[in-house]
Amino acid sequence: MERHFDDELKKLKESIIAMSLTAQEMIECAILMLKERKNELKEHVFEKETKLNMMQIEIDDIALKLIALRQPAAGDLRFLISAIKINSDLERIGDLAVNIVERNQELLKEPPLKPLIDIPQMAKIAQKMVYDATDSFINKKAELARQVCCQDDIVDNLNEQIFRELLTYMLQDTRNITRAISLTFISKYLERIADHATNIGEDVYYMVEGKDIRHHSEDYCK
Amino acid sequence: MERHFDDELKKLKESIIAMSLTAQEMIECAILMLKERKNELKEHVFEKETKLNMMQIEIDDIALKLIALRQPAAGDLRFLISAIKINSDLERIGDLAVNIVERNQELLKEPPLKPLIDIPQMAKIAQKMVYDATDSFINKKAELARQVCCQDDIVDNLNEQIFRELLTYMLQDTRNITRAISLTFISKYLERIADHATNIGEDVYYMVEGKDIRHHSEDYCK
Repeated sequence: MERHFDDELKKLKESIIAMSLTAQEMIECAILMLKERKNELKEHVFEKETKLNMMQIEIDDIALKLIALRQPAAGDLRFLISAIKINSDLERIGDLAVNIVERNQELLKEPPLKPLIDIPQMAKIAQKMVYDATDSFINKKAELARQVCCQDDIVDNLNEQIFRELLTYMLQDTRNITRAISLTFISKYLERIADHATNIGEDVYYMVEGKDIRHHSEDYCK
Repeated sequence: MERHFDDELKKLKESIIAMSLTAQEMIECAILMLKERKNELKEHVFEKETKLNMMQIEIDDIALKLIALRQPAAGDLRFLISAIKINSDLERIGDLAVNIVERNQELLKEPPLKPLIDIPQMAKIAQKMVYDATDSFINKKAELARQVCCQDDIVDNLNEQIFRELLTYMLQDTRNITRAISLTFISKYLERIADHATNIGEDVYYMVEGKDIRHHSEDYCK
């Protein structure tokens, strides 16, 4: 019986890793589409979204069944509840990658506004945060989870800086406005991806350390 | 023992209702601040956010303890897991009300761009969705939950319409740009509040009917 529970837990962990990787690939692909202006890349992202949605339902089911049938001890229960929460975050990260693709499609109707450097850099950081947050969860690494949460300010500042720059383009010439707004939204979506990674980090920190660092970043990031 | 469990469940429900009302008051207050241009209203929203954050931690704790100590049957377990998910949604709704206040503060630095009609209307719909979603959860009303999910498209369309109108202001005169962008973001935040209410509706529908309507709005809203 105990053995069986461990096998099921292992399967759940593998599913969450697979889901996280899918979400990360979606971010990567959406940003590649933005950089290289290849409309056909959107299909990859849409396909992966369908996959991600199925994974979400499956993971929720496995976790719920494990709680109901195995009545796990406190530590395992906390892990399973976190799995359900993280599952939602990963699914929403995938949705945000789809939102980026939708803005890309708008952008492809016009010539490029400017060379893109900051947004791909921001995407890399956000993607790494998703990777690390998942790793911290699977391997119960509280310190890594804390680090993910502290990266959130860096992404927020990048988003602010990108917006300020795009605003100058808008003020310069009204013909820049629609493209600058699309890029502003893409930057905002990446910031929200980082927020979801931060939510995961906060959940993991609570799960491992029993301390709530939500709403207390000033005490935990120095 | 059974009696005790029911009492604790009742307490949990009351806490969630209180949390939802607080989140709704935050939306209302943020929009009142926007309409009446009263900077002092921000304090109410910030105070309520602190309260909301404490409520979130408390509700998570109660739900987790009930699952761990009472080992509830399938129906109650599903309710408790939903409570934990809904708790996150309500907290993020409060964060979005704070985001609206932050944009309001930007807007107060300049004279009003235009009379505001659509945004307050959108806020009313979003707030009602939060109310109904909470009601559907507490009283296990699947049909109401479905209706909340179907309202999401109305809010999305309103957001799109508001954006198109604000874009014309931006294109008309570059001096309108910063204010129009702030209003675009406020509209977007309201759309996200509606998304969170929809998430709650989807959770409730699944909890009551055992059917997953996530990613299938075309089949459920006609």
